[in-house]
Order: sequence, then C-alpha cells, then structure tokens
Amino acid sequence: MVEPAYLDHAATTPMIPEAIEAMTAQFARPGNASSLHASGRRTRRVVEESREAVAAALGARPSEVVFTAGGTEADNLAIKGLYWARRAAGATRVLVSSVEHHAVLDPAHWLADNQGAQVELLPVDEFGRVRPDTLREAIERDPGSVALVSVMWANNEVGTVQPIRVLAAIAHDHGIPFHTDAVQAIGQLPVSFSGAGVDALTLSGHKVGGPMGVGALLLGRGLEPVPVLHGGGQEREVRSGTIDAPAVAGLAAAVTHAVARQEALAKHLTELRDDLIRRVREAVPDVVVNGDLADRLPGNAHFAFPGCEGDALLMLLDAKGVECSTGSACSAGVAQPSHVLLAMGADPAAARGSLRFSLGHTSTQADVDRVVEVIAPVVERARRAGLT
Amino acid sequence: MVEPAYLDHAATTPMIPEAIEAMTAQFARPGNASSLHASGRRTRRVVEESREAVAAALGARPSEVVFTAGGTEADNLAIKGLYWARRAAGATRVLVSSVEHHAVLDPAHWLADNQGAQVELLPVDEFGRVRPDTLREAIERDPGSVALVSVMWANNEVGTVQPIRVLAAIAHDHGIPFHTDAVQAIGQLPVSFSGAGVDALTLSGHKVGGPMGVGALLLGRGLEPVPVLHGGGQEREVRSGTIDAPAVAGLAAAVTHAVARQEALAKHLTELRDDLIRRVREAVPDVVVNGDLADRLPGNAHFAFPGCEGDALLMLLDAKGVECSTGSACSAGVAQPSHVLLAMGADPAAARGSLRFSLGHTSTQADVDRVVEVIAPVVERARRAGLT
Repeated sequence: MVEPAYLDHAATTPMIPEAIEAMTAQFARPGNASSLHASGRRTRRVVEESREAVAAALGARPSEVVFTAGGTEADNLAIKGLYWARRAAGATRVLVSSVEHHAVLDPAHWLADNQGAQVELLPVDEFGRVRPDTLREAIERDPGSVALVSVMWANNEVGTVQPIRVLAAIAHDHGIPFHTDAVQAIGQLPVSFSGAGVDALTLSGHKVGGPMGVGALLLGRGLEPVPVLHGGGQEREVRSGTIDAPAVAGLAAAVTHAVARQEALAKHLTELRDDLIRRVREAVPDVVVNGDLADRLPGNAHFAFPGCEGDALLMLLDAKGVECSTGSACSAGVAQPSHVLLAMGADPAAARGSLRFSLGHTSTQADVDRVVEVIAPVVERARRAGLT
Repeated sequence: MVEPAYLDHAATTPMIPEAIEAMTAQFARPGNASSLHASGRRTRRVVEESREAVAAALGARPSEVVFTAGGTEADNLAIKGLYWARRAAGATRVLVSSVEHHAVLDPAHWLADNQGAQVELLPVDEFGRVRPDTLREAIERDPGSVALVSVMWANNEVGTVQPIRVLAAIAHDHGIPFHTDAVQAIGQLPVSFSGAGVDALTLSGHKVGGPMGVGALLLGRGLEPVPVLHGGGQEREVRSGTIDAPAVAGLAAAVTHAVARQEALAKHLTELRDDLIRRVREAVPDVVVNGDLADRLPGNAHFAFPGCEGDALLMLLDAKGVECSTGSACSAGVAQPSHVLLAMGADPAAARGSLRFSLGHTSTQADVDRVVEVIAPVVERARRAGLT
C-alpha cells in the first residue's frame, strides 16, 4: 500500500531525527536527575542543558522553563495554578477566549463549577480573533477581580493568529497575569516569550517534532502558581514528578530545530497551503474557507463543504489515502459542531461539514496533489450520503 | 573510568531492551490515538494492546487501566480525585499511612490546607508497617466521614511490605475506596490488582524497566475520580492529554517482562541483598539495619551508620564508584531526617546517618562486593568528619 498523505500535523507531527537521537541516547544511561551521585548529576546536566536550549530558542530565561508531561498539563497548571494563587486576594474572574483548546476551557469550567471561579468566555470576531477592545472592556468592568487572562497564540482548528502582544499589554495595564497556549505556533510562527510580554506560555513536544508526553510551561519568575501535581517538589516546587530526562532532551532538540527552521518552513508551508486552498476552491466552487487568510498558521487550511458531514468526508478521504481531521483530534469521535466555529458565528449545519488540513515538516507537493485529485468526487459522494 | 556500581534502582532503574525496542518502534510512525484516520487507528491499536498487556500482567481488566504521565500523577489523581468525588457526600477524612511517598502525602496535605479535607496520618510500627487494628480504629471513629484510604504496597525507603489485602478489606467493610502506591512493588513482589482487592493502584514506568514519563492508575470500574488534568477527555474522561503511545508501548513491554521475571529476580536479589547486609554488618559492627528483615522488598537494604551524616556517606561512596541514596531521590538535597524513619520511631540523629542500597535487574555480585570493599573506610572517614 502507498503511504497515506498525512495532513494532520496539528494533531501530531512526526519526530525529527535529531529529537529521536537526543532521546534514545539517554535510554542507555540510568539516572534520576534528583539523585546526588554521579549518574544523577549527569542526568541533571542533561536536563539543565535542555532547559537552557528551550529558553534560548524561545526568548526566555532557563529559570522560566517548567517541564511538564505535555501541553494539557501545562495549560492546567497555568489556569488552575494561577487561579488558586490569586483567589486568596479576591481575584476570582477567569477570562479565556471562546476559541481555546479544551485543555484551557475545561480547567476553566471546572474551576467555575467547583472552585468558586467566574469564567468569562471572550467573544471573537468572524475570523476567531479576540479584539483588544473586547478584552479591555471585560477587564475594566472590575479589574481587581480578574485572576488571569488566557488567549491562545494561534488556533488549533482554524489557524487564526491572535494579537498576543497587544492583549498581554492590556492585561498588564491592570497587573493581571496573561497566559497563552502556543502549542500550535512554535515552529510555524516566530515565538518569543519575552518579546510577547506574556507571563506564562504553553508548549508541547509532539507538535514541534519532539516526543509525546513532554512539554513545558514558560513561567515568569515572579509567578507562583499552585501546583496541579504535588510530590517530590521538582521544577521550582511548581511541578512534581521524576523529570523525564530522555523526553526533555528530545524536546530541547525539537524546539531548537523547529525555531531555527521556522522561517523556511513557514515559507514552504504557506506556498503549499495556498496552492491547496486555490485548487480545492477550483474543484469545489461552493467551498468556504474558514479563518483569516492573511494572518493564520502557515500550515493550516480549514474548509466547510456545504451539505456534507465532516466525519463522512474524513472517512472517505481516509479511504483514498488522505489523512486529515474535522477539528481537534482531542474531540474526534464526538459528533458535535466545533465550539471554535460556533464562536466565530458559523451556522451549526455548515460547521458540521468542516475539514482541517494541517501541514508540517514532512509535507510535500505530492500530499497537496493527492487531496486535489480526490476532493471533488469525495465531496460529491458525501453530499449524496447526506441527502439520504 | 570503571562504570560505577549502581545501587539506586529504587530511584530509577535502566530500561530493559524490550521496552526500548517497543518504544522506539513507534517513533518512526506518526499518529494521535484520538485521530479517526488510519494512522490514528493504528496508534489507538498500539495503545489498546498495551492496555491489555498491562492489565493481564497485573490482574486487572483493560478498562481498569488509566494511563498517566507517571507515578506522581497517578497518586495525585487517586488522592485528590477520589477526595473530590466523595466529599459531596460529606466524606472528608483522608487516611494515609505516615510512611507514604511525598506524591501521596503532599496531595493529602494540600487537600487539608486548601480543600476542606481532614488528613489523618496512620501510625506505623517500628518496621514501618500499618497494623490492621490501627486502620480499623481510625475508620471506626466515624466510618461515614472517610473519603479514602491510601497505604503503599511497599515502602520506597526501607522496603517494608504492607498487609495490603487485609487493609483493603477493612476499608471495604465500610464501603471506603482503598488506594495503594505499588510503584516499588511491581517486578519485585507478586502484585495482583484483583487479588489484593484494592480499588486503585499506582504504577510507574521507570521503576520497572520502562520509560520515564509514563505510568498508570489501575482504577476499579465503579470509581470516578475527579480529573486532575482536564481537557480532551482521553482515558475514560478521567485523564486528559494526548496519549503518549510510544511510552505506553514501552511501559507495557516493561511491565509484562517485569512480572514474568519477578520470581527469578526476587530470588536473585534476595541472595545479593542478604549477602550485602551480612557483610556490611561484619565490616561495620555497630550498623543498624532498618525495616523488616523478613517481609521487605528483595532489592532493598537500608542501614543507619551511627555517628555519620548520610550525605557525607553518599558522597564518599560516590567517589569510590558506589551509587546509592540517603532516602527518596525526590527529596534528595534536602538535609532533613526521613519522615519514614521518624514515623518508625527512629532517633533523628540516627535517621540522618541512613543509606539506602537498592538492587535491580542489572545488579551483580560485583556490585555488592564493591560496597563491601569500601564501606568500612568510608564510614570511618564520615565519622571523623562528623566529629569536627
């Protein structure tokens, strides 16, 4: 069988060889980074060099890197941890955009249902963008009561990039910590922790060519979120659990290369993606392209095919050797319209006919050609299925 | 330089080749187990086969395996999650043994300080064992108010094995869920989830020859702990975050082999360990052996050297090519006597002169010989240092 065309890099992207090598090099050598003997100190050195590499690539200080088991954990730590840290002072409002990933939304809703928070979902425009005035007005209704603001760097479904620096500055005008989930942005856009002026930033290994099961929260030095995982006190007493030194080494290699290659990759993906959008429009003239065409992730193309069910499209494409997604992989299998599209004002029926193609470091012109070859008959067939 | 004698397997033990192979085999193939296309389904199959293997090795059902990022996360999920799930019904007492790992103790204390729990530390006898009557009396003071009981299968510092089946039955007499941290037990002792009759059991990859950054909570099907990590809803809606398929495959291989080899390993380690204890006693006649000599982890030898500082002993041994620990690696670097030894009634000064040697699957007679060779002069030198 021919290898499928993999256009689901936003769900997970293959590890780069440098990350595999950095990680597997550690497998042969035992060592707990908290142990005081030579093997422990050697492992600690690997962890601290990895911390320095991640910091250097992302415009942060090494002491600002808190390693976690992935993006979801980093988001939970930021949302819950900062809320718990600040509610003692009476700050109980949690402002998050209505298009966040579930790893931000669900912790926020849990805090509201169980921990006394008031969660406010910031509305977005038709592109999925939080307008600065929206955030300003929400804060100024009662600035002292806001525990934190969280707005993602770029949306995982429709690819829209948020004006993070402007939004962070608005929060800072009132001394409110600002978190951003940058899981999708790193490696596709220039990302600088200090340059953006944010207080907390989530990254994930397996979205940038590193291993699964590892990520980090970049965390300004003044901030002390309450831990989500308590225990041995590793990672600034903010995150407990034996540090996964092999994965951390793999993460550092991936982030380093992803950032070094970002500009070239972005150019390459933008060309492929624009070609994909242009030719899908030719093949299916009534297709709708969601999100902002100008300011979006280079690898993201998001379509709505009127009269189709997204899941039907996905399975028909899969049968033709094209792998993509109806939205977030994390919600895959759940047949409900995307909260992102609904927040952008999409009609629920149209939202159900959506497909995301996400390109990444292994993407080629042949992948795009494969989609273009099969999309018209697949849409035709999905429409017929929808009519029965 | 000669390779050091590694006697710190309780902190972390090297990956077995089968686990490295199972894990790295997944690196080449992208796939998010939540994706619906062929690559996603292939990854899902790897995860579900791994779940079946872990369940089969540990006497559980596949649906009872909740994969986590490690032992600390599994412990946090059990302690916090079961507490939150049961406090609505007025059950707010959390009973944990006083010799638990910090990954159990610290969540319990946090619940007490911040979430309305009453934590009761169950006292232990001079071997570090919770007597059944102690638990029964604590429960019977007010059975309806107990949210959960947590007692570890075997202690990570002194190796004492707890009467888990008896303790779990006492909790069950009152319908109270029972959790056990079995991180140190698996691969050294026979461990059966159903056989022990516990409701929740923590395991960790890197303590059984698998990768770091992965573990599991075995969880009876009737139990629904509140998640510690919210998000995409993976793992029975109990634990969110992209499943780390490569690590899960490595974990399954490690657990399978650790359980299959347990009896032979236990016999081998018991012989080495008993030889170590006997000859250290000969070399340093006033040494004290902590814990229960009869019912302890086969790989554990725990000594107190009167008149010494544990950290000094550790560094002197390290310089001689012997790697060991003063207690839990997770608390290494913190110069305070072990809470485990204090709970066992040890004198604080004696507790500070403690060393743990922990053996594992790579341990040899040569490792033991190395310790025996150097221990007397090292203790002598540490004593002189202590006098100044």
